[in-house]
Amino acid sequence: MEELIDRQSPLRVRQFGSFYVGGRMVRLEGLPPRQRISTPGGPVHPIDPNGEIVVGQMYVQYVRLAEPRSSVPLLMWHGGGMTGVNWETTPDGRPGWQMFFLRAGFDTYVSDAVERGRASWAPFPHVYPEAPYFRTANEVWEDVFRFGPVGSWDADSAKRCTHPGLRFPIAHIETFLCQSVPRWDCNNVATQQAYDALLQRFDDGVVILTHSQGGNFGMTAALRAPKRVRAVISLEPSGAPDPAKHDARLLKDVPHLFVWGDYLEKHPFWVASLPASQRWRDALQDAGCALTWIDLPALDIRGNSHALMSDDNSDEVASLVLDWLCQRIPFHPQRP
Amino acid sequence: MEELIDRQSPLRVRQFGSFYVGGRMVRLEGLPPRQRISTPGGPVHPIDPNGEIVVGQMYVQYVRLAEPRSSVPLLMWHGGGMTGVNWETTPDGRPGWQMFFLRAGFDTYVSDAVERGRASWAPFPHVYPEAPYFRTANEVWEDVFRFGPVGSWDADSAKRCTHPGLRFPIAHIETFLCQSVPRWDCNNVATQQAYDALLQRFDDGVVILTHSQGGNFGMTAALRAPKRVRAVISLEPSGAPDPAKHDARLLKDVPHLFVWGDYLEKHPFWVASLPASQRWRDALQDAGCALTWIDLPALDIRGNSHALMSDDNSDEVASLVLDWLCQRIPFHPQRP
Repeated sequence: MEELIDRQSPLRVRQFGSFYVGGRMVRLEGLPPRQRISTPGGPVHPIDPNGEIVVGQMYVQYVRLAEPRSSVPLLMWHGGGMTGVNWETTPDGRPGWQMFFLRAGFDTYVSDAVERGRASWAPFPHVYPEAPYFRTANEVWEDVFRFGPVGSWDADSAKRCTHPGLRFPIAHIETFLCQSVPRWDCNNVATQQAYDALLQRFDDGVVILTHSQGGNFGMTAALRAPKRVRAVISLEPSGAPDPAKHDARLLKDVPHLFVWGDYLEKHPFWVASLPASQRWRDALQDAGCALTWIDLPALDIRGNSHALMSDDNSDEVASLVLDWLCQRIPFHPQRP
Repeated sequence: MEELIDRQSPLRVRQFGSFYVGGRMVRLEGLPPRQRISTPGGPVHPIDPNGEIVVGQMYVQYVRLAEPRSSVPLLMWHGGGMTGVNWETTPDGRPGWQMFFLRAGFDTYVSDAVERGRASWAPFPHVYPEAPYFRTANEVWEDVFRFGPVGSWDADSAKRCTHPGLRFPIAHIETFLCQSVPRWDCNNVATQQAYDALLQRFDDGVVILTHSQGGNFGMTAALRAPKRVRAVISLEPSGAPDPAKHDARLLKDVPHLFVWGDYLEKHPFWVASLPASQRWRDALQDAGCALTWIDLPALDIRGNSHALMSDDNSDEVASLVLDWLCQRIPFHPQRP
């Protein structure tokens, strides 16, 4: 599909903008008065922190092309402890998957889910019942993103070691860590509701592309609105619907793609997380769903971390996804 | 300047992307172990919340045009408790100031400052010394954004009242509230450092456009790098450098524009905040700086709130800014 993508000509953009989905007003009460200084050297203002705030909203930023080649937009849903920034420029400064799919002819809708980034977050314990946690570099490196074996992170960069053949641009690990945001375990219901509400805005259908924690939200959203979803692409989903609780037959007409990188078996987090996706894959297959399960190392594409869209072969992986997708949705020939 | 803007043709975009400025690694210690569940129905993973995280970074998202008409980009810096979303689509769904200035021919760099939005935030009291505060709808309505007189907010929308003639699209107040993020008073130094570092990326100069709390950061950044700044535009700055501490003569070659809306005198926050800008204005004028102070009601443009870029005449105000700016920076004639 590489030949389908014009990497040189300017993108012709109809509109760039954003909106919010969901959100409800809650009232904070019982908080002590505060003083605030809004700017260096500015006056002190008394404020009453009690009152209404909006919580539970999700942020969505869109780029609408003048002449999209795909008849349906691409919704790009990030993983846990992350925001839509994951889809933008890679940590080493290359165009990310958002640019890739814009150049391929898709309108893109990149979201920051509830509690993250431009979606904001709500006070704890007043609204969220608990404090967030901040993912450490250690957890990023050894546990979730699989940059190196367990025990290989060190605060001293000279003492770190990576998996042999790793494709993640490790010299730019600090830029990648900049993309992290705090996360909570208590907002799954609100997040799913926001994604479900987002789909209701698209009467003519969408493609859902997710990463990691976004995977379960994406597959569940498709279950709840199968007629609105033309395809579901899950990059290393950390979870999936439980076939004992959900009827995969609802999705028999919705093609699904799973993509997996390297080193999974070396990381307990992934060994424990993978079976949920395998069970849902099997249920989808039994239901007659058009399903593709790409294990990149089996295609001799080795060295991919969990950050598939940031790895130095990110465009190669994106091309596999585009190739799969173009065969399954209406796609116009190249515009003049 | 309206005639300069092509509102119909597609934008020709060279690159859409983002980067981070600043950020440093700190180590969290002494925190108890936690369990996490990363996805609904997923396995429980033990995690150690102690370790390195990155704090103090700023997020910057750019849209680079194929043929910019301005030789220098426009940096758009939001106000307190807000993110770069302020510059995107207005709460009532019209194209915001970012689209306006893209259509006018500026590359745009929209930031989320330290502690906000996609810049993430750091744990308190471990890194930040204190908890944030969440701006209530009451404070937005009556105090900072001047939608209605003091005492006019009510949780029941039927009981709220606005200033007569208000231009803010008040039916969309909840969408506007969705844009709010928590704020701290303790991050001014880190935020200023990040803005200063951002300017160091632009050897050929920039225009700085700020709103509210961003104003003091913008004027201070210009003081620290006057040769990199072609113009400073401050929409209702909540503060400004103190002439007793800073030498305005450093800015004598940098044109400054201030823009003010309506109802200022009715709001104690603004009555207390305005003198800092007036003192800096006077110092800039004494230094021979080309300075323009626009009081919109004095031009018979009435009803503007503090959210000038969201009000229903946002394009009219943007046109005034563009008109002023085009006379002060190199600006190419309309491309064919």
